[in-house]
Amino acid sequence: MTSKYGVTAIGNAIVDILATTTDEFIDSQVQFGMTRGAMTLIDEHRAKELYGLMGPATEVSGGSAGNTMAAYASLGGKGAFMGKVANDQLGKVFTHDMNAIGVHFDTPSLHNGPATAQCLILVTPDAQRTMNTFLGASTQLTPDDIDESLIAASEITYLEGYLFDQPEAKAAFIKAAELVKKHGKKLALTLSDPFCVVRHRDDFRKLVDNHVDILFANEEEIKELAQISDVEQAHKSIAAKCDISIVTLGKNGSAIAAGNEYIHVDAIPPAQLVDTTGAGDAYAAGFLFGLTEGKPLAECGRLGSLSASEVISHMGPRPVRPLKSLL
Amino acid sequence: MTSKYGVTAIGNAIVDILATTTDEFIDSQVQFGMTRGAMTLIDEHRAKELYGLMGPATEVSGGSAGNTMAAYASLGGKGAFMGKVANDQLGKVFTHDMNAIGVHFDTPSLHNGPATAQCLILVTPDAQRTMNTFLGASTQLTPDDIDESLIAASEITYLEGYLFDQPEAKAAFIKAAELVKKHGKKLALTLSDPFCVVRHRDDFRKLVDNHVDILFANEEEIKELAQISDVEQAHKSIAAKCDISIVTLGKNGSAIAAGNEYIHVDAIPPAQLVDTTGAGDAYAAGFLFGLTEGKPLAECGRLGSLSASEVISHMGPRPVRPLKSLL
Repeated sequence: MTSKYGVTAIGNAIVDILATTTDEFIDSQVQFGMTRGAMTLIDEHRAKELYGLMGPATEVSGGSAGNTMAAYASLGGKGAFMGKVANDQLGKVFTHDMNAIGVHFDTPSLHNGPATAQCLILVTPDAQRTMNTFLGASTQLTPDDIDESLIAASEITYLEGYLFDQPEAKAAFIKAAELVKKHGKKLALTLSDPFCVVRHRDDFRKLVDNHVDILFANEEEIKELAQISDVEQAHKSIAAKCDISIVTLGKNGSAIAAGNEYIHVDAIPPAQLVDTTGAGDAYAAGFLFGLTEGKPLAECGRLGSLSASEVISHMGPRPVRPLKSLL
Repeated sequence: MTSKYGVTAIGNAIVDILATTTDEFIDSQVQFGMTRGAMTLIDEHRAKELYGLMGPATEVSGGSAGNTMAAYASLGGKGAFMGKVANDQLGKVFTHDMNAIGVHFDTPSLHNGPATAQCLILVTPDAQRTMNTFLGASTQLTPDDIDESLIAASEITYLEGYLFDQPEAKAAFIKAAELVKKHGKKLALTLSDPFCVVRHRDDFRKLVDNHVDILFANEEEIKELAQISDVEQAHKSIAAKCDISIVTLGKNGSAIAAGNEYIHVDAIPPAQLVDTTGAGDAYAAGFLFGLTEGKPLAECGRLGSLSASEVISHMGPRPVRPLKSLL
């Protein structure tokens, strides 16, 4: 690797507020738009209301791409992150955690605007997480926040699909994609959420057709993107559009397509399954770490499985043990 | 139980910031006053400096007496808490968590003063925690904050020794002890920390001699209070002063003295030992729950062991699973 950074990620800078809950509670909230296992965007009023209904919670830095960078650094990778926090206590928490793990992060924080983004995460007894995000300050990431020098200095720029939910962040996203091309680097994208794909299917398709080198998706997301109900067929229909495409399959592992290769990788069962928040983010980190270390694709997938396995063994979306120590 | 509340606790309202660390890091901080396994008071400047040196962290409501009430409520007990938070994000987190677990908490929050108290907790590979507390807003708990009606409505008022570290909070503490006597209720005290005992030994002795009905201590604390180096002798020398005295002995369980009774209770090994933060607080909760439910002393001790066992099986000082479900 000759670039200064292996991966620079751009995403929503979010602090997670996690609490365990019952299946009945999730059922009671469906009428207010909550969707089990998915991410629902909520406004500040609803965030307050829902927080009031939640049990005692744990606060921990989150955000899909932020989680990926934390895990990437935990594996020993050198990375950077761009995203917007407010100048408040939770913004300081997010910033601290990035710095503490050694991820370069210097996007200016927002003054006199909404609070740092919060994701209220409800973990059911099956370890599934249901997410409710108040985007707050993270929506104020604009094209001006995209640091060209970081993109130029990174082998891979990694974008989360969630950014498409906000016009300014989407513009920042597009600018980043163009800068990646300008500097002859690689662009990676995660589709983030099946509903996010439904909301922006045409834009994602264009992006995948024209810009994306490495695509991450889970079963539901790839099926939505391809509009094909069989996951393997959906994957293969998209695979031709990018260098590498990866579909995570939960406890069934993952599938990697690249040129004529189609590789299945097993999951690594955790010591105990506690909370699946961040599983896909950690998988992407492991895979990208493998890539930037020049490993073969099957080994990249194994590093993804290993990283995900640590993250789902405890509450919270980021590694607790240094992933490097598990290698 | 005829009182409205089983237990009302008074303590420092603190949000914990927990990170894992190495033994070497603790060693490197000894020169700045850090004491392995104990609680050191730090100022805001040192808190910022130390936070900057810490790894990625988890934020979760803490504070010794606050943890005890969270565990007490988790067991099914009805309790209340008095303590001071600031009107900031972490203050809202602390308040939310008290309300969410069903603990009555309405001490007015502090405006235009220091931030909500924070405890920077470093967890070493042996699961031991080393605590560094910036007391912030919690030092502004004054006698005016002591709600007589809550004390009158509670079978037991539970005080943490840490309050003695601040003059105003100590005055609030003394007022509470007198109100307990006035209303014919029981006073419980935890000695909190061996260094706290050293700092306030004479005052604690007077309090134990004249006011305390139920005393909680660990090995080091009881030895410091009695100034006797054998833990059992130390315990017995203090036992005559109060109705019930309990010494927790880590993995060796606990010892309960009451009148002529001297009972040993086994520890309950956790599924996995992760972080001992809050072990003593949870033990006190289980014991107090047994008492307010009219259980025999040995059963009170077993409930203490059970509660502690859950809390040390994960990061953070409060139960993650409802303790009621473990009964």
